Amino acid sequence: MSTIAEGKRKAAIVMGSDSDLEVMKKAAAIFDRFGVEYEMRIISAHREPEEFFAWAKGAEERGVSVIVAGAGMAAHLPGMCAALFPLPVIGVPMHTTSLGGRDSLYSIVQMPTGIPVATVAINGAANAGILAVKMLAMADEELKKKLKEYLIEMKETVMEKDRKLQEGRE
Amino acid sequence: MSTIAEGKRKAAIVMGSDSDLEVMKKAAAIFDRFGVEYEMRIISAHREPEEFFAWAKGAEERGVSVIVAGAGMAAHLPGMCAALFPLPVIGVPMHTTSLGGRDSLYSIVQMPTGIPVATVAINGAANAGILAVKMLAMADEELKKKLKEYLIEMKETVMEKDRKLQEGRE
Amino acid sequence: MSTIAEGKRKAAIVMGSDSDLEVMKKAAAIFDRFGVEYEMRIISAHREPEEFFAWAKGAEERGVSVIVAGAGMAAHLPGMCAALFPLPVIGVPMHTTSLGGRDSLYSIVQMPTGIPVATVAINGAANAGILAVKMLAMADEELKKKLKEYLIEMKETVMEKDRKLQEGRE
Amino acid sequence: MSTIAEGKRKAAIVMGSDSDLEVMKKAAAIFDRFGVEYEMRIISAHREPEEFFAWAKGAEERGVSVIVAGAGMAAHLPGMCAALFPLPVIGVPMHTTSLGGRDSLYSIVQMPTGIPVATVAINGAANAGILAVKMLAMADEELKKKLKEYLIEMKETVMEKDRKLQEGRE
Amino acid sequence: MSTIAEGKRKAAIVMGSDSDLEVMKKAAAIFDRFGVEYEMRIISAHREPEEFFAWAKGAEERGVSVIVAGAGMAAHLPGMCAALFPLPVIGVPMHTTSLGGRDSLYSIVQMPTGIPVATVAINGAANAGILAVKMLAMADEELKKKLKEYLIEMKETVMEKDRKLQEGRE
Amino acid sequence: MSTIAEGKRKAAIVMGSDSDLEVMKKAAAIFDRFGVEYEMRIISAHREPEEFFAWAKGAEERGVSVIVAGAGMAAHLPGMCAALFPLPVIGVPMHTTSLGGRDSLYSIVQMPTGIPVATVAINGAANAGILAVKMLAMADEELKKKLKEYLIEMKETVMEKDRKLQEGRE
Amino acid sequence: MSTIAEGKRKAAIVMGSDSDLEVMKKAAAIFDRFGVEYEMRIISAHREPEEFFAWAKGAEERGVSVIVAGAGMAAHLPGMCAALFPLPVIGVPMHTTSLGGRDSLYSIVQMPTGIPVATVAINGAANAGILAVKMLAMADEELKKKLKEYLIEMKETVMEKDRKLQEGRE
Amino acid sequence: MSTIAEGKRKAAIVMGSDSDLEVMKKAAAIFDRFGVEYEMRIISAHREPEEFFAWAKGAEERGVSVIVAGAGMAAHLPGMCAALFPLPVIGVPMHTTSLGGRDSLYSIVQMPTGIPVATVAINGAANAGILAVKMLAMADEELKKKLKEYLIEMKETVMEKDRKLQEGRE
Repeated sequence: MSTIAEGKRKAAIVMGSDSDLEVMKKAAAIFDRFGVEYEMRIISAHREPEEFFAWAKGAEERGVSVIVAGAGMAAHLPGMCAALFPLPVIGVPMHTTSLGGRDSLYSIVQMPTGIPVATVAINGAANAGILAVKMLAMADEELKKKLKEYLIEMKETVMEKDRKLQEGRE
Repeated sequence: MSTIAEGKRKAAIVMGSDSDLEVMKKAAAIFDRFGVEYEMRIISAHREPEEFFAWAKGAEERGVSVIVAGAGMAAHLPGMCAALFPLPVIGVPMHTTSLGGRDSLYSIVQMPTGIPVATVAINGAANAGILAVKMLAMADEELKKKLKEYLIEMKETVMEKDRKLQEGRE
Repeated sequence: MSTIAEGKRKAAIVMGSDSDLEVMKKAAAIFDRFGVEYEMRIISAHREPEEFFAWAKGAEERGVSVIVAGAGMAAHLPGMCAALFPLPVIGVPMHTTSLGGRDSLYSIVQMPTGIPVATVAINGAANAGILAVKMLAMADEELKKKLKEYLIEMKETVMEKDRKLQEGRE
Repeated sequence: MSTIAEGKRKAAIVMGSDSDLEVMKKAAAIFDRFGVEYEMRIISAHREPEEFFAWAKGAEERGVSVIVAGAGMAAHLPGMCAALFPLPVIGVPMHTTSLGGRDSLYSIVQMPTGIPVATVAINGAANAGILAVKMLAMADEELKKKLKEYLIEMKETVMEKDRKLQEGRE
Repeated sequence: MSTIAEGKRKAAIVMGSDSDLEVMKKAAAIFDRFGVEYEMRIISAHREPEEFFAWAKGAEERGVSVIVAGAGMAAHLPGMCAALFPLPVIGVPMHTTSLGGRDSLYSIVQMPTGIPVATVAINGAANAGILAVKMLAMADEELKKKLKEYLIEMKETVMEKDRKLQEGRE
Repeated sequence: MSTIAEGKRKAAIVMGSDSDLEVMKKAAAIFDRFGVEYEMRIISAHREPEEFFAWAKGAEERGVSVIVAGAGMAAHLPGMCAALFPLPVIGVPMHTTSLGGRDSLYSIVQMPTGIPVATVAINGAANAGILAVKMLAMADEELKKKLKEYLIEMKETVMEKDRKLQEGRE
Repeated sequence: MSTIAEGKRKAAIVMGSDSDLEVMKKAAAIFDRFGVEYEMRIISAHREPEEFFAWAKGAEERGVSVIVAGAGMAAHLPGMCAALFPLPVIGVPMHTTSLGGRDSLYSIVQMPTGIPVATVAINGAANAGILAVKMLAMADEELKKKLKEYLIEMKETVMEKDRKLQEGRE
Repeated sequence: MSTIAEGKRKAAIVMGSDSDLEVMKKAAAIFDRFGVEYEMRIISAHREPEEFFAWAKGAEERGVSVIVAGAGMAAHLPGMCAALFPLPVIGVPMHTTSLGGRDSLYSIVQMPTGIPVATVAINGAANAGILAVKMLAMADEELKKKLKEYLIEMKETVMEKDRKLQEGRE
């Protein structure tokens, strides 16, 4: 069905500034956990538009299947990725001091018809990673199996917290 | 790579009320255009939680690879789909009279870690459809080719509008 | 009039994460003060939907008359309780860093017709407890008497503060 | 358990202006459907504070168990009811032209500790009625039975809409 | 023109909680500076509605010409003063953690026709004091003269800051 | 006490554009009803700053005791009046299409220390008129008597509406 | 001082969609009035990124001194112009149905350090034109003279409206 | 083309309070870097309107080509500069504790037709400086050359950060 060799299939994480790195590393941690290969780059659509264009245009050829792009304020990076890369782009709106991240959120989610960005919560880089894994798992049973194990683990963590609460109340 | 037979791979569109149908049909139109098979259902997580649970839990077995869920106000449908279905869920926040759709948007995009919903613009059902197609195209060269044709068509529509504007100015 | 034995009548407090515990304990403190029996559980509608479903569906049989549910961000827990439990559900929107709790508030209060959630202020867990006591007091003269004593106590606390202010000004 | 004679137990609907009547009638329709006796009054806390005080203070003696109060803009009516009436008060924030009802919502839901108002959605008077019925049903098996029938009816309405959608797609 | 003896003419400062005292003292400091006599009280419209009613109804007789009322969240105190006191009421919306004071502001400024509250900035108690002084100065040449001196002083403070900036740049 | 002859004491209504006239006439109607003499002017602080300066600086000498200033969007007119006129300025934030009047409200109410504007509700010109009357009534027993009659009239209007509602229910 | 021949100095108006044309024509009308030469183009940064890049990169060489860019929702066009064009870019946030233009405004004004966009009011295309004229007038005495005539005209329009109001009141 | 001698061409920075100085110094730093001559003043439109008027009216004659004005809350300074000075005014909305700077932003950007203010991001004084330099560079090739060097420097800073990230991942 697919002509891309499995070994080449990978994700990309991109952000416009190293001030976003602390948050965006959570997406990388998800990829590390699920064994998803990925690029991680600091490239600014505003400050180096030509480098950005070349990078985004070349992503498909480098085997990238999905891009996770984090940006804050007038956050154009995810939308410009979506304009240049034909496969899914996931946008992570950064929290901002003055507007709490509403500016980032609106700049990422309110895309015009034809150029969607899959937007997650403000500072939700871990969820961006999980969403990318889910997309890859659509055609990868192995990854889907790992996803289900992850979901069970999450459930158990909550149950353990409840158990502690119940013990504390006895 | 994938053990799902290609014929079984499909999308689902779900909404909680027929008042969302006019908007959600735009996602269906995208699937029709790209030849993506899909279910389209009106099921309310609030008014028929057991039916909803059964539907969402059974989606994977019915060959659904991605769910597009539209909801307004305290929009729980996309998030509850994401809790019950292991593959990607795309959320469409409905415009609302009093809060303009901010309520729907926040209820859909601000998901906790582990349970992402890929959120698109308020009333952005067409983009939800396109995003689903992009996800399916990650492992489907045929679909990716159609996507690129769609992008060229979009570009030509804009160029045609510009041409008319220039002619009008001469 | 009622077929539920008085001894079985109780409240429930539920939250999706132990990060909400500090706030939600204020509801528990109110129940302790008024001698209202209650369950207190950490159960996530998103991370363990089946456990959550079973818990919420079984609440009526366990003698629960009212549920106090706290949740933050895309806060679905109170609304899903209301979908599964036929008696009143009180929702406590948690304060959030980025949106100040507007996301939690809208996700809880903007419920569709047929499935109300009685919403209190952001982080207003103490008021959720008091509201639950008021509901129970509708058919419990003893509890109503305690409520009135509580109101007198509150009033006296304010009057005492005013007295101090007046003394300081003399 | 209760010393209030069953015949005296009733609800009250109050609003500050007849401009709220169209919306508040939906709460009345719910009470009519469930056979809940109720007062319905137009009384303004701002324009006739003494009449309002007398009415709210006397509600308990008139056998009122729960008050549904609708108000818009700087909506003080529900909160002042809650200050004067010891049992539950349900607040309905009215939609407003300039702020969409955010002003009404914040003025009703953000009550200080000790004086909760059970807030429903903007213009959510039907839900306010249902919430009041749920409170009354806590100690009234007959009413609870009717509530469950109502929930089944709601579910069937949604299912019927889905059936029509499926027929249309065949 | 006026039948109120000059000695009886005074202002009142009222707040619902001692948590507002730090801010409201700035109004008192303005009154102290301008030699305006005033009451300062902590009285809660929610927690002691009858005491509040008596106080607000009696203000005119006690010679109060203007009330400065501070309140936060669902801030009903200024509006209820305006319902009970026939002369001007100035409202000070308190800053709040979750909504930044928008809740207080909307609850105070959005009053219905007939019952205005003169609203100042969030936490703007000093300005509330100055506004009250301006109202009193409408019929008091002495006070108006003091106001003009205050304005000159303000101007000189800014000019002094500019002088320092210019010196630093030389 | 006052050196201003009673005949000279009057109000002023000012707005920056005739698009505000429909709303601002409600303040004029209040002045007409209470027999308060007033100027009404269209003067723009932005488009004719010198004319505006001269007008605002001269208001005191013309016997103006209080200014009612209406403005929309980046509403500077009320604040600039307050900078130039030593007595009270009442600001009326105009409703706006895009931001609902939030822009006007914030531009008027959030004044810095020393230069208060008494702000009323969005489009609340009638209340601005009433507030001005209340200020004038602080030293005018005749006007205060009229105010009390107005309040009684308002109360009776509400009571009449309630009577009709009760009759309709019989 | 400048090596650009005066004849080559011009402005550009750009928008991403013909739905913005009605608003953006107001900027063109200003340029027509002031005799400023300009390009007007419909080019989408999202739907034809390469065409857009070429256009924006080439603007300086074509003699463009200032770009007026209008865009709505996740409005990236002005910011991407600013990334590619070294001289001033003026952004016009379009009004939007759901968020009133807040999304457009935040996406345009909240630019990161180094890449400013001179933002005007929501739908403020006429002001964008005037701002561009002001920039051009910084080094063009002729244009500055015309600007001052325009300001006088504006002032006279307001004065005429006031005259009519005064006549109507006589 | 221009009759203003090059030596007289300069910028101005103005703010209403020394509390804005820390932020506004970033505009000054930009002017220092680009060798743009500038005045920097603390002048309050509210507290010293006449001094402000004289300063703004005289700016053109002093050779000022562009004004950068910073202000917070009900930020009238930039708009009043634009009313009095015929060439471009750049507004810097200050961050505010309660409303995050939304009040400042709306008060600056939402100017009426005819009187634009070129608005930059909340606290975006550096960008205001850069925007002013861009305006000056429209007719100054030397400055434009420096701007391009600055843009290259910015790009290299981002590239260096990316290099470090890549090294850290090896």
